[in-house]
Amino acid sequence: MPVVGKAHRRTDGLEKITGAARYTEDLRLPGMLHARLLLSPYPRARIVRLDRSPALATPGVAAVVTADDLARLGNGASRLLAGPFTRYTGEPVAVVLGESETAASDGLDALRASVEFESLTAVLTIDEALREDAPLVRESAQTEEDDAEAHATVVLQEKKAERPSNVANRVAFTRGSIEDGLRQAEVVVRRTYTTSRIHQGYLEPQAAVAFVDPVTGEVTIYTSTQGQFYLRAETAKRLGLPQQQVRIVPMTVGGAFGGKIVNFQPLAAALAMLTRRPVRIVLTRNEDFLATEPAPASRITIELGATREGVLTALRARIEFDSGCEPGAPLTVASLMLGGYYRIPNLAVEAVDVLTNKPAAGAYRAPGVPQATFAIESAMSEMALLLGVDPIAFRLRHASAPGDPMPHGRPWPNMGLRQVLEALDAHPVRRRPRRAGEGIGVAIGGWPGGLESATACVRASTDGTFQIVTGAVDITGTATTMGLIAAEILGVEPGKVQVVTADTNQAPYAGMSGGSKITYTVGEAVRRAADDARRQILAIASDHLEARLEDLEIAEGRVRVKGSPTAALSLAEIAALSMKFGAKYPPVFGQGSTAITRQAPGFAGHLVRVRVDRETGAVTILDYVVAQDVGFAINPPEVEGQIHGAVAQGIGWALLEQVVYDEYGGLLTGTLADYALPRPSVVPPVDVVLIELPSDEGPFGAKGVGEPPVIPGAAAIVNAIADATGVRPTSLPVTARHLALAPRG
Amino acid sequence: MPVVGKAHRRTDGLEKITGAARYTEDLRLPGMLHARLLLSPYPRARIVRLDRSPALATPGVAAVVTADDLARLGNGASRLLAGPFTRYTGEPVAVVLGESETAASDGLDALRASVEFESLTAVLTIDEALREDAPLVRESAQTEEDDAEAHATVVLQEKKAERPSNVANRVAFTRGSIEDGLRQAEVVVRRTYTTSRIHQGYLEPQAAVAFVDPVTGEVTIYTSTQGQFYLRAETAKRLGLPQQQVRIVPMTVGGAFGGKIVNFQPLAAALAMLTRRPVRIVLTRNEDFLATEPAPASRITIELGATREGVLTALRARIEFDSGCEPGAPLTVASLMLGGYYRIPNLAVEAVDVLTNKPAAGAYRAPGVPQATFAIESAMSEMALLLGVDPIAFRLRHASAPGDPMPHGRPWPNMGLRQVLEALDAHPVRRRPRRAGEGIGVAIGGWPGGLESATACVRASTDGTFQIVTGAVDITGTATTMGLIAAEILGVEPGKVQVVTADTNQAPYAGMSGGSKITYTVGEAVRRAADDARRQILAIASDHLEARLEDLEIAEGRVRVKGSPTAALSLAEIAALSMKFGAKYPPVFGQGSTAITRQAPGFAGHLVRVRVDRETGAVTILDYVVAQDVGFAINPPEVEGQIHGAVAQGIGWALLEQVVYDEYGGLLTGTLADYALPRPSVVPPVDVVLIELPSDEGPFGAKGVGEPPVIPGAAAIVNAIADATGVRPTSLPVTARHLALAPRG
Repeated sequence: MPVVGKAHRRTDGLEKITGAARYTEDLRLPGMLHARLLLSPYPRARIVRLDRSPALATPGVAAVVTADDLARLGNGASRLLAGPFTRYTGEPVAVVLGESETAASDGLDALRASVEFESLTAVLTIDEALREDAPLVRESAQTEEDDAEAHATVVLQEKKAERPSNVANRVAFTRGSIEDGLRQAEVVVRRTYTTSRIHQGYLEPQAAVAFVDPVTGEVTIYTSTQGQFYLRAETAKRLGLPQQQVRIVPMTVGGAFGGKIVNFQPLAAALAMLTRRPVRIVLTRNEDFLATEPAPASRITIELGATREGVLTALRARIEFDSGCEPGAPLTVASLMLGGYYRIPNLAVEAVDVLTNKPAAGAYRAPGVPQATFAIESAMSEMALLLGVDPIAFRLRHASAPGDPMPHGRPWPNMGLRQVLEALDAHPVRRRPRRAGEGIGVAIGGWPGGLESATACVRASTDGTFQIVTGAVDITGTATTMGLIAAEILGVEPGKVQVVTADTNQAPYAGMSGGSKITYTVGEAVRRAADDARRQILAIASDHLEARLEDLEIAEGRVRVKGSPTAALSLAEIAALSMKFGAKYPPVFGQGSTAITRQAPGFAGHLVRVRVDRETGAVTILDYVVAQDVGFAINPPEVEGQIHGAVAQGIGWALLEQVVYDEYGGLLTGTLADYALPRPSVVPPVDVVLIELPSDEGPFGAKGVGEPPVIPGAAAIVNAIADATGVRPTSLPVTARHLALAPRG
Repeated sequence: MPVVGKAHRRTDGLEKITGAARYTEDLRLPGMLHARLLLSPYPRARIVRLDRSPALATPGVAAVVTADDLARLGNGASRLLAGPFTRYTGEPVAVVLGESETAASDGLDALRASVEFESLTAVLTIDEALREDAPLVRESAQTEEDDAEAHATVVLQEKKAERPSNVANRVAFTRGSIEDGLRQAEVVVRRTYTTSRIHQGYLEPQAAVAFVDPVTGEVTIYTSTQGQFYLRAETAKRLGLPQQQVRIVPMTVGGAFGGKIVNFQPLAAALAMLTRRPVRIVLTRNEDFLATEPAPASRITIELGATREGVLTALRARIEFDSGCEPGAPLTVASLMLGGYYRIPNLAVEAVDVLTNKPAAGAYRAPGVPQATFAIESAMSEMALLLGVDPIAFRLRHASAPGDPMPHGRPWPNMGLRQVLEALDAHPVRRRPRRAGEGIGVAIGGWPGGLESATACVRASTDGTFQIVTGAVDITGTATTMGLIAAEILGVEPGKVQVVTADTNQAPYAGMSGGSKITYTVGEAVRRAADDARRQILAIASDHLEARLEDLEIAEGRVRVKGSPTAALSLAEIAALSMKFGAKYPPVFGQGSTAITRQAPGFAGHLVRVRVDRETGAVTILDYVVAQDVGFAINPPEVEGQIHGAVAQGIGWALLEQVVYDEYGGLLTGTLADYALPRPSVVPPVDVVLIELPSDEGPFGAKGVGEPPVIPGAAAIVNAIADATGVRPTSLPVTARHLALAPRG
């Protein structure tokens, strides 16, 4: 295969490197109003008074909008702003619209001085939320659909709560008898692990510009989103519009990682509908920290039991997610992975969604699974230590294999957990001499693989080039990958294939870019579409050259009759035969659709060597090895890039990142000075070992590669720290405070 | 059929009536430069001196661009401006780019004062062009491709000239022996008919805004065009770019009629490439009259012979088109229609393209055929008068029928010429009592029907609506028609179907909107795409409802099991089953392609009653009847609208319109005060008789309806004038000057 499997440059690289890419923030529509949001300063409050006149008197302020104004649009649009109660610090309460950003900011200052809140008792922690007398964060017992979990395409189970409670959802999976299993156990690891709220850390804050056609009423939204069709459906639903009245134009995305699905676009649209002017909402960094949906914090209690011979007998786990003010934490996928990596005869895993007065939790790369994996992989390494066995050998002994049951009883599909562990086992970093203060840690992580139906089109142009049209937003280089897939099939150089991400009015359907599914599902649709176009090309050539189909080949941009070097037609000529006045062939236009229902789980294993300075508590990562089963790496540097980024984010989970609220529910980490994202200086070189166990359905055997590499990072780093120090941290992030001068043991 | 064949409103009506439609002229891109063109004041001249410094010194002028500057782009871009010689009055010589239109205009004034031309002897008429010693308008003997004629999808024949000459192209068709035929004739009509240059009369002047992506170099052109893909290919060719570097975004078109195919878009793109800023070219009305491509003037000599018994024996015709400075007049289609309407055993038709120092002639609704029809239909009525027979009966006696040979020897496809004449014959206006000064005239006209391959897509949305995506620009209400076709097939109300005209990056291929082919070819592609979507919908319903396909029906937005009112799925539910996380069905996405090679000629017959005031020469149209075979009227008011507009334009051909140059080649009709477009006051109520002889390949039997109704107008009106006055005008337009106080004879 001349194209796929080789290294290719990203087609969007140059415009991003040079700063020329146009983001939503760069848009200026004539007559556009700028929005600034009045955010609730309290985690739970009643809006006592909101006097808009000082804001309206500010020069350049065009309007002040509250939930009452939105109510004029009907259909529940009023819920896009808070009132009369607020549910978290940062909840949007009102919007000031100005002719300029400055005018809107000035108006917001005036509004802020003239609004009065009555602060109410808030629920700020899981423990507070679980108290019998806790105020209810949410009145309804209704379960809502779960964006984050939908990434993993797992079906919700027994999630409905019976009465209003701060525990909104619950799932539970059992196998065997957990009591028997724990009774048989001779060694038990019992631990409670906690992880922090983590912001997705995208560099481009949330941004949307909405415009309403004055005649048709069609709403157009230019925005940074991962999923235009999902956003269209949600926006239409929240505003009570037919979907064809909503057009989402996906713009260049400046980082998303799960955090850009449905955010302020419906509000921007509602404001444009109210004012009949274009409205731009671009959050400041501080607003983005306050008012968006980070990954949920978690508290996970594990009891892992084994015999002295090192045979696992039982795993009991309870996962509590601090979901903020709306249910929707990824209970199922977290449970399935936590309880599914290893063969354990007796199992009881439950997970609950706990509501608190914080912003609703959202999706972040592999939703729920880094948290679950931190717990189980910490426990596994601790157990190996207690048993005196090698942690990789111990994992290999129990690793689930294809066909083994997952916690919900269904079998694991084909996957490469064993191969990943074997690759780590064989890696030279394993045998590197160990000096004082150094330690080595290992962890694995798996992702079941997202699924969603998709269609793609491949069109020929009369100059011999091709264009792929899809509705899949490129957040990770997938457009480059699509081009390579089509180029391979069509027998042309990648430069001859252009990939167009069309808007919701024009694109064939594709799912949201999340869940590690774009290459697996849309990529396969592209492969089929290219194949369809290829068939059409060969049929035209066969007719025109009067040659049998089986005698034809495509090479170097031409269709040739094998063995007859002169009988050939260029792809440009063939396309032109199909697209001209009086053409006798229909236009070369390939279509491919997929509805893959078989998941292709992706597994990654991380092997980390660290040095811990016990004086300062500083952790230095010395070696980082990732072995990952990617099915087939269509563009290997792109796959490695995914892994590098995920390693950085794993370091964030392990050592740096946390959204922190004070005891009054005020946000302490509202800037990038307070919220510590990993910088290049903390990210070591990463040694990537790609394992290619082809999937059954992905293009050329590819599997999703986005989620898996972020999953094991925190666990592997913490296991290395424990190995270096003898201290076993159970709370993320592990900061110098945890490690400096701590007693051994 | 609940939808098609009924009256429906145009979906674009409201935005056009309210003035809210956004045209190219309304676009303002950040940093955009405004272009004003320096046009040649002479029909043939040498540019002696062009001093750009005064223009550049004008405040707000950013650049002055000449052909030499364009030469920097290579690839013949320099040909987009004249130099060192000009070929017609109005030819663009230089461009002044300003930060505002005013600045550009001021700069143009300065430039105009500092440029010097040497006027050269020009060729201004057909006679001057044909003189042995005439200057050559064009040095090359090369024949170029012929946009206008391509409308009719006829193949060019023996067009190549042997040496450079002002006769650029020639076609000739013969049958039998023209000498024998004329010898057998006992009555011969010998006449020379002339028609004027006619501007297409669109209300929106030519407009293009071009933008070059600073990183990728991709050129985006927002423009009023009839054919985005054709324009893309031509722009790419003229600028030496790959097609995927050119993106045409078709904007709302404010009238086109053949005049908006490739105009100033390549120049706008070249200017944007040179300046790296967006460039807007919007012509003034005067510039549009000076510098665009109107319908060619013609001179047609006919000898039509018959026996005294009224049997036609011979037709000799020579058609000369005054094509301006580039070849490309519609020789073939004019010849085929002129010589093809009637069964005449001996035939000799030739047509030539004569070059003069005028703007190149372009396409205008039914290119070439109103001219040819004016000649043959005048001659037919004069012959009927000489023979003393009824003009309709005479035509019916000789009317070609399906299977009869056309001048090129190929048979007429199915068509309704006879039925059209019979409808006129039966019409009560025929028998209306005739007063002094009144006359009645008849004429027929036919159009072979354009052909071009096309693809269309029909996508479902999860709320039960559908979107059609095509690349066909709507200039006549075709988008509304597409929606009706799909709604009929899909069993939904038309409001549930939205039609999207996508740009060249996103649309499936469709041909240029011209040649009466969009409904016939793209409409059929839409029908097939809707059918494909319908099949997918039924397959999902069958699987989901566990019902046999043949037991299912679609009605009222639902798929039902016949006879089981409860077993049903809404189209929204079916769409949602195909587009969601983990969907087991691929997205409902229908595709349809056509490559129809069978033409469906459209025939129209016009019956006109006029009164001529011999004192003033004023012509009043009293009755206007149009009988037209439209195959099937998908949206009858739209079809009638096409006919109403064409009747108005026919009145323009007959009585009003002419582009006039003075003896020095200066344009006398450069404003709408000088160029007389028909106003509502001159257009009578039109009685439309729709005849529906279904085509074999069009959707629901539809045929092209755009071109035919403009064809017979001038001939029918002139025949009525001749009947009223006894004067036979042979030169269009027939103005009061021709008729006032003219002697009978």
